[in-house]
Amino acid sequence: MNAPLENDLYLRALNREAVERTPVWVMRQAGRYLPEYKRVRAQAGNFMNLCSNPELACEVTLQPIDRFNLDAAILFSDILTIPDAMGLELAFETGEGPKFGKPIKTRADVDALPVPDPNDSLQYVMDAVSTIRRELNGRVPLIGFSGSPWTLATYMVEGGGSKDFSKVKGLLFSDPKTLHVLLEKNAQAVTHYLNAQVEAGAQALMIFDTWGGVLSPTNYQAFSLHYMQLIVDGLTRQADGRKVPVTLFTKNGGQWLDLMAKTGCDGLGVDWTMDLADARKRAGDTVALQGNLDPSVLYGSPESIRQEVKKVLHSYGDAPGHVFNLGHGIHQFVNPEHLTVMVEAVREFSTK
Amino acid sequence: MNAPLENDLYLRALNREAVERTPVWVMRQAGRYLPEYKRVRAQAGNFMNLCSNPELACEVTLQPIDRFNLDAAILFSDILTIPDAMGLELAFETGEGPKFGKPIKTRADVDALPVPDPNDSLQYVMDAVSTIRRELNGRVPLIGFSGSPWTLATYMVEGGGSKDFSKVKGLLFSDPKTLHVLLEKNAQAVTHYLNAQVEAGAQALMIFDTWGGVLSPTNYQAFSLHYMQLIVDGLTRQADGRKVPVTLFTKNGGQWLDLMAKTGCDGLGVDWTMDLADARKRAGDTVALQGNLDPSVLYGSPESIRQEVKKVLHSYGDAPGHVFNLGHGIHQFVNPEHLTVMVEAVREFSTK
Repeated sequence: MNAPLENDLYLRALNREAVERTPVWVMRQAGRYLPEYKRVRAQAGNFMNLCSNPELACEVTLQPIDRFNLDAAILFSDILTIPDAMGLELAFETGEGPKFGKPIKTRADVDALPVPDPNDSLQYVMDAVSTIRRELNGRVPLIGFSGSPWTLATYMVEGGGSKDFSKVKGLLFSDPKTLHVLLEKNAQAVTHYLNAQVEAGAQALMIFDTWGGVLSPTNYQAFSLHYMQLIVDGLTRQADGRKVPVTLFTKNGGQWLDLMAKTGCDGLGVDWTMDLADARKRAGDTVALQGNLDPSVLYGSPESIRQEVKKVLHSYGDAPGHVFNLGHGIHQFVNPEHLTVMVEAVREFSTK
Repeated sequence: MNAPLENDLYLRALNREAVERTPVWVMRQAGRYLPEYKRVRAQAGNFMNLCSNPELACEVTLQPIDRFNLDAAILFSDILTIPDAMGLELAFETGEGPKFGKPIKTRADVDALPVPDPNDSLQYVMDAVSTIRRELNGRVPLIGFSGSPWTLATYMVEGGGSKDFSKVKGLLFSDPKTLHVLLEKNAQAVTHYLNAQVEAGAQALMIFDTWGGVLSPTNYQAFSLHYMQLIVDGLTRQADGRKVPVTLFTKNGGQWLDLMAKTGCDGLGVDWTMDLADARKRAGDTVALQGNLDPSVLYGSPESIRQEVKKVLHSYGDAPGHVFNLGHGIHQFVNPEHLTVMVEAVREFSTK
């Protein structure tokens, strides 16, 4: 039996209820900009060891909550756990991004892919979720997450990160059928994975569509949004007698916020390339918005950080339904004290 | 005395005059996807040798005109010639992008930067322009180009390419004054450089703002668009008794097309993440639009290429003022015969 929730600002804001102040959390809040994270990371040996050890994953998840008093915790994990569990052999080489030992090359590769049982090869993630939920002890809600089917597919087909996505887009334009089979499997796997996270204790969910924004409008709908819709439709939306809100985030997807809102999700992530006032007009009034300070603002002076926080809050305005965040993950070389300045400014300027 | 222009479709389309068919050219049309380019590139030894040798630069500029019968030629050069001429020591290392030996680090570095005389340290570019213009012999117009002040500044401060632009954005948020001094110098340098290209024979101009789209809307206006405006205001707009049209292209800048149109430019480049019908609504009726096929379409089958070309032409519609192009530079691994399919499809489907 988990402890009752003390701070539910994040859940209420996503439900577009009135709140005393704007809740704030930060994408990649557990990460390399924190010296305490780097210590645990070194102890773990490598990144996947850290993800797959529930106690260590729990420790780094809680570090930014302890340090900054944020209003939500997010599971420490990687978006590529699913393809790894499908057998693609994920590895992180020093100084490089993720690489798959067995990337997807043919239709036969796609057909051979299993849809992983989250309580089997991904049990380590569920153990991390339940451990974190227990250790949070009701302080703030825990967000579970996954990459979107399209975003996972980009890494699975490219074999790692990419600049121009030539392989996965080559597949899209030369053999769209095979890509659809892959995306369908990814959507099933993500749905099972997120539902298992809720079962293990996640109180909110987020789907990161990091690379949906490299598609044309028509292809975004067909190859990314459609599969996020399948997931939203298949998710457990209640737990502990409360709604489990779902937030979708397509980086560089500002022009599609209206379409994204129609999926029936609760919140939309917005990057910093669009004003929140414009995002609100585009998204309509059925969803909350999360964002959208440029992460680079944190390289500036404390006074300029405060000014920029004020601008974001002002751009959103007084209506309910705002979750403050950066417009993308926090950068590695940011001074953690600058994040303190940001969080305190959000509190100060948004308190009713 | 240069030969009279035989094919002026590109210039007329940018002037939004009625045309018999939609003109077509391709960003990076002279490049590594062409075996004939690779031969000349190998002969030159390295990339900068190729840029700085007017005969070789002319040869590769004309290769795609000969092969595909395109409707415009574009000067073969690099956007970083200006910072190189300012003394930042540009180098291209094998397998990596451009690097500067002496990147901008301090205000003193910015203050010490000269605004280069294009007829001195950049004379090799002007020689290439006049050579190409002579060798084109009136077949199609010659486009001159430059990077935008902001885009040049990103490379100058980062010391090369970047993923998150932490250094130049750090400067933006911590010391915006210094960045403005740098951008002002870049704007002056670009204005002189483009006017010298017109003097040497360029019949149209294009400004590539590859990285304006990583800024917030307010910062885009203050740090990128403002300096493109200064350039547009300072350009020679007539040559050979004809208008010299100017096209601005901010990648991922679709939401700002209205602001860009107000600079008084003639054309706007549009990437593939926005439909041309929406781009037209946003940009208004004072400018032509260039674009916007996803470069990855060229990895698909000939039949799918033809279908996608048709969609782009249809999305623009029947109004005058369309220049067909990709939404970004052509990829290195594209089969040149697929570009032939694209060009022929544009001819076939757009002929009145």
